[in-house]
Amino acid sequence: MRESDLHQHIYRRAGDLGMRYPQVVLGPGDDCAAVHSPEGGLTLLTVDQVIEHRHFAPDTSVDLIARKAVARSISDIAAMAGTPAWSLATGMLPEGYPHARELTDALHRWAEYWGAPMVGGDIAVGPRGGPLVLTVTVGGGVHPQRGPVRRDAARPGDEVWVTGALGGSLASGRHLTFEPRVRDAAFLAGTLGADLHAMIDLSDGLGRDAGRIAAASRVRIELDAAGLPRHADVRDARAALADGEDYELCFTVASAVAGALPTRTPDGTPLTRIGRVIAGPSDCVAELDGRWASVSELGWDHAG
Amino acid sequence: MRESDLHQHIYRRAGDLGMRYPQVVLGPGDDCAAVHSPEGGLTLLTVDQVIEHRHFAPDTSVDLIARKAVARSISDIAAMAGTPAWSLATGMLPEGYPHARELTDALHRWAEYWGAPMVGGDIAVGPRGGPLVLTVTVGGGVHPQRGPVRRDAARPGDEVWVTGALGGSLASGRHLTFEPRVRDAAFLAGTLGADLHAMIDLSDGLGRDAGRIAAASRVRIELDAAGLPRHADVRDARAALADGEDYELCFTVASAVAGALPTRTPDGTPLTRIGRVIAGPSDCVAELDGRWASVSELGWDHAG
Repeated sequence: MRESDLHQHIYRRAGDLGMRYPQVVLGPGDDCAAVHSPEGGLTLLTVDQVIEHRHFAPDTSVDLIARKAVARSISDIAAMAGTPAWSLATGMLPEGYPHARELTDALHRWAEYWGAPMVGGDIAVGPRGGPLVLTVTVGGGVHPQRGPVRRDAARPGDEVWVTGALGGSLASGRHLTFEPRVRDAAFLAGTLGADLHAMIDLSDGLGRDAGRIAAASRVRIELDAAGLPRHADVRDARAALADGEDYELCFTVASAVAGALPTRTPDGTPLTRIGRVIAGPSDCVAELDGRWASVSELGWDHAG
Repeated sequence: MRESDLHQHIYRRAGDLGMRYPQVVLGPGDDCAAVHSPEGGLTLLTVDQVIEHRHFAPDTSVDLIARKAVARSISDIAAMAGTPAWSLATGMLPEGYPHARELTDALHRWAEYWGAPMVGGDIAVGPRGGPLVLTVTVGGGVHPQRGPVRRDAARPGDEVWVTGALGGSLASGRHLTFEPRVRDAAFLAGTLGADLHAMIDLSDGLGRDAGRIAAASRVRIELDAAGLPRHADVRDARAALADGEDYELCFTVASAVAGALPTRTPDGTPLTRIGRVIAGPSDCVAELDGRWASVSELGWDHAG
């Protein structure tokens, strides 16, 4: 079974959680879940895992392994325009693993760096040969004015924008050193308010992730492939569309206010208009090699 | 490095989190962490993992694997007298694993069974040969009158009690089918209020876990080994003290009110007085083979 099929099964199965449980505001299917506390506040929740050989090479430094494990979940909070507040971690360490203390220290340090002090966790010993597996759960607060920015609220007429530059993350090592766009997301939510319609962080490639906004919002997204912001080491638009692990933000905004967006956020992160939302069958399309084609299935699927 | 040493290192390192972060009420070192939401409510947080070969045998049914993964974290919420509210899960599934859908269905079903609907998670593919690894994060509310019951508040003069019966959990298979004591814990918190001083769930054996109450509370705990409630298949007191994964609750209560405790909770769970808290060097001791000895290091340590 492909992971995308499994995810669809999970989303369908959990689709009515919000109706059956008053504490559930947003269940599986977005970058974060959102739950009500009894006092009425909203908490964003996300968990992600990093697995040796798959998400990092065995020779990666302990510090960068820990950094990536924390940063992936922090990026999910950013994708909802939230503020990280706490974290939990688990580690399955290969039997005889010599860097346990250094690893847990690094996890705590990076969690605090992004404002999510690590309040608990679990360490266990796995098979001697590995893999090393870490999971990081992060909870956060929502933007006080805008609330959580979901992926299912893009509207025909919106412009599609992206932060930063795209492509080549795995080859260049940027997947280990990216900065989750927490502050930029808060800037966008504060500046655009309710006109910031939908947002997602780019973990599986722009085509695939913009396709997720299109599918969740039941709209069509057209991307201007030639105008995509690319890192200097990325040779063509296809790579910018297909490469995973950019951890930039892709968002849609009402076109009437998009003109107010600066070319960079206060932190200096570039903002680029890359396409538009139109009515039509749910899909994300781009012009590649002279013809328009769906890019919602470009790049990797975590085939099982 | 032994896991217990690593845990001590983490607890020391994180000891001042509550002073540096206003949202952190209770950091690493208890069954759950506790964090403040901006609105002032308290949320209990815990995460645990189950690993094939270590926490379950490869021939265990998918339903029981999922059940144990969820139940372990639910038991941590019970140990604080909390109420489960939501959960998140991760799964690292061996490449080619044929039961992905059945497993995620079972995780969702058990999470809902204990009132903690699964609002999110992550599935990834691991090495073909395994192991299968699941993690479950659970968040919960605290008891409305008593608040979170910690392990560091036992006092000299307290009586020590335990729910249910002890020992033989792994050999008998009870480690796969135990019922987390959520309702019994709420009954104890409601009945005893502030006189319920300290509580822990028994994951690593009574001696070791009662020893954790003693260490955290800086008291001495004397257990009446001969009077420990044992399952019918448990041959002696040493096994009742040393065997892990009972997931019963051990708690200390002011002796003046302990007489009010019934012999069973409203759910029918036996309650047994098993010892006392005295002033003295932090340790848990019991009379075994005619002499008093420390039992704080009995049973398993997750040696790394």
